[in-house]
Amino acid sequence: MGKLSEFEMIAKHFAPLAERFANGVLDSFGLRDDAAVFACASDEEWVVTKDMIVEGIHFLPDDPPASVAKKLLRVNLSDLAAKGAAPSHYLLATAWPTSADDAWVAEFARGLGEDQELFGIGLLGGDTVSTTGPATFSLTAFGTVKTGTMIRRAGAQVGDKIYVSGTIGDAFIGLQLLKGQLSVSAAGDRDFLVNRYRVPHPRLDLTDLLRQTAHAAIDVSDGLLADLDHLCRASRAGARVNLESLPVSPAAQACIDAGTAVREDLARGGDDYEVLFTASPTLSLPNDVTPIGTVIGQEGLWAGTGEGPLSPLDSAGFRHF
Amino acid sequence: MGKLSEFEMIAKHFAPLAERFANGVLDSFGLRDDAAVFACASDEEWVVTKDMIVEGIHFLPDDPPASVAKKLLRVNLSDLAAKGAAPSHYLLATAWPTSADDAWVAEFARGLGEDQELFGIGLLGGDTVSTTGPATFSLTAFGTVKTGTMIRRAGAQVGDKIYVSGTIGDAFIGLQLLKGQLSVSAAGDRDFLVNRYRVPHPRLDLTDLLRQTAHAAIDVSDGLLADLDHLCRASRAGARVNLESLPVSPAAQACIDAGTAVREDLARGGDDYEVLFTASPTLSLPNDVTPIGTVIGQEGLWAGTGEGPLSPLDSAGFRHF
Repeated sequence: MGKLSEFEMIAKHFAPLAERFANGVLDSFGLRDDAAVFACASDEEWVVTKDMIVEGIHFLPDDPPASVAKKLLRVNLSDLAAKGAAPSHYLLATAWPTSADDAWVAEFARGLGEDQELFGIGLLGGDTVSTTGPATFSLTAFGTVKTGTMIRRAGAQVGDKIYVSGTIGDAFIGLQLLKGQLSVSAAGDRDFLVNRYRVPHPRLDLTDLLRQTAHAAIDVSDGLLADLDHLCRASRAGARVNLESLPVSPAAQACIDAGTAVREDLARGGDDYEVLFTASPTLSLPNDVTPIGTVIGQEGLWAGTGEGPLSPLDSAGFRHF
Repeated sequence: MGKLSEFEMIAKHFAPLAERFANGVLDSFGLRDDAAVFACASDEEWVVTKDMIVEGIHFLPDDPPASVAKKLLRVNLSDLAAKGAAPSHYLLATAWPTSADDAWVAEFARGLGEDQELFGIGLLGGDTVSTTGPATFSLTAFGTVKTGTMIRRAGAQVGDKIYVSGTIGDAFIGLQLLKGQLSVSAAGDRDFLVNRYRVPHPRLDLTDLLRQTAHAAIDVSDGLLADLDHLCRASRAGARVNLESLPVSPAAQACIDAGTAVREDLARGGDDYEVLFTASPTLSLPNDVTPIGTVIGQEGLWAGTGEGPLSPLDSAGFRHF
């Protein structure tokens, strides 16, 4: 680092993010203690999720630092949204290479600060170290649910419809654009698709709907089919999916029409951070929630519609190794 | 990695560590969900701490994997001990280089499993990713205290005695031995000192004593003087320290006698994972807790005894950057 000591970095960039919790049932002690404390209401449980991201693997070296910070936070909030939990606070561990400069850290912290305001949460504690490798960040996010109401992956019932929020495949195309593996003619489409990769929108707006209706839920991070496979395995069931009904954005549809994207690949791409859930087939749904299939007793993923014949679907999504 | 996929690694090595929490007020869902849940008693608060360690910085590439895992867990438990908290569970995020093999991961998980039994805790959740850099691990540990009783860094009162548990400087010498910067003649001394570096013993045996007596506490990780400085700054006080009273082990004393270690360096070395606390000067103490100084109104750290003259002490401990 060479510019700020770890203590100066914490005091300058991260302690202000912890001011929200100077007192009360959550206390960060201004990041000047070894630990933080938090209580919980007697009728609630904490839901906790922890993700780690590595430069060059989960984000690109020239991604804007504020969007790296936002993505780190939001992928965790996306997990909370799919579980029906209301976000509360987070812990952050950061490992910085010597090449990281103060301006990068300042932008990273600014991104977190903006999202704290947007989502009404705050930093409660963490750790700051150096690394000889790529920048590596680990974030632990906490949310609350009424006791016993966390929506699980397990719980899908045969006959449930399978629903997905938003549109699928935008981030997959956005990453290809950033890597120069693909191009689109409309600048607006490019910005939209790249932004879908860089700054996901956790579907916290769906939390009430999910609490009221979902039998099982998961956020789409590894890829729609891979995550559907996770959900089905946990529920000891299978799924019949109609990929023709996959919701795609106008920008992604333009790529399909131009022959530069294949609908089935979009269902394997990942990084969508939409919510996939199963519920009663008679559900009345918001506009941007789309039924894409049905939970069936036969394990595995199958392509097919209605009572037609089934053919096996390969779920392969993103794997680290 | 090349041998196991991330999902296979989780299922084989880490899911068994989460079995403790298959049901009840804590539920890991066998690491097969996106999140875990935990409740808390109405008269308790959660104390949470999060540390990150990086190969080549916090541990050496040829350190035994089981001891790396134990140190990672124990440095967090040491924080909980100093705060008067009873450990409950932990989250673990791991980033693996391609060179990590299954045997290393298996040994790492075995170390965690042994310590889970020893400390009566378990794995509740986490994340597993790949990295192009050194192995990097982040652990978040949770403990409980009765509401409002977490022992803080702030709270030292002028006139308090300053106490430290165990012996100081063993790990500092142990690290020098591992790096080949120092040698000791007695093999037993070498084993003792190296083990003090590799596998600290969080002072959970002192939790009751601390709850009953400590006005302020911190665990000794950056170095005794650096951590005393942290405690004094948080308490807006200073300290008069008699380094001649610093408790050292027979193995460390042998190094001092041989002229290969300097007492004052041991107070700056770090990695001791003992507890430093302030309390009434009339306290009746266990054998391995030693008074080393007094809290004074004059800010800063000062060398001196009784009413004699004070000279400033440089607190410089380990800094990441």
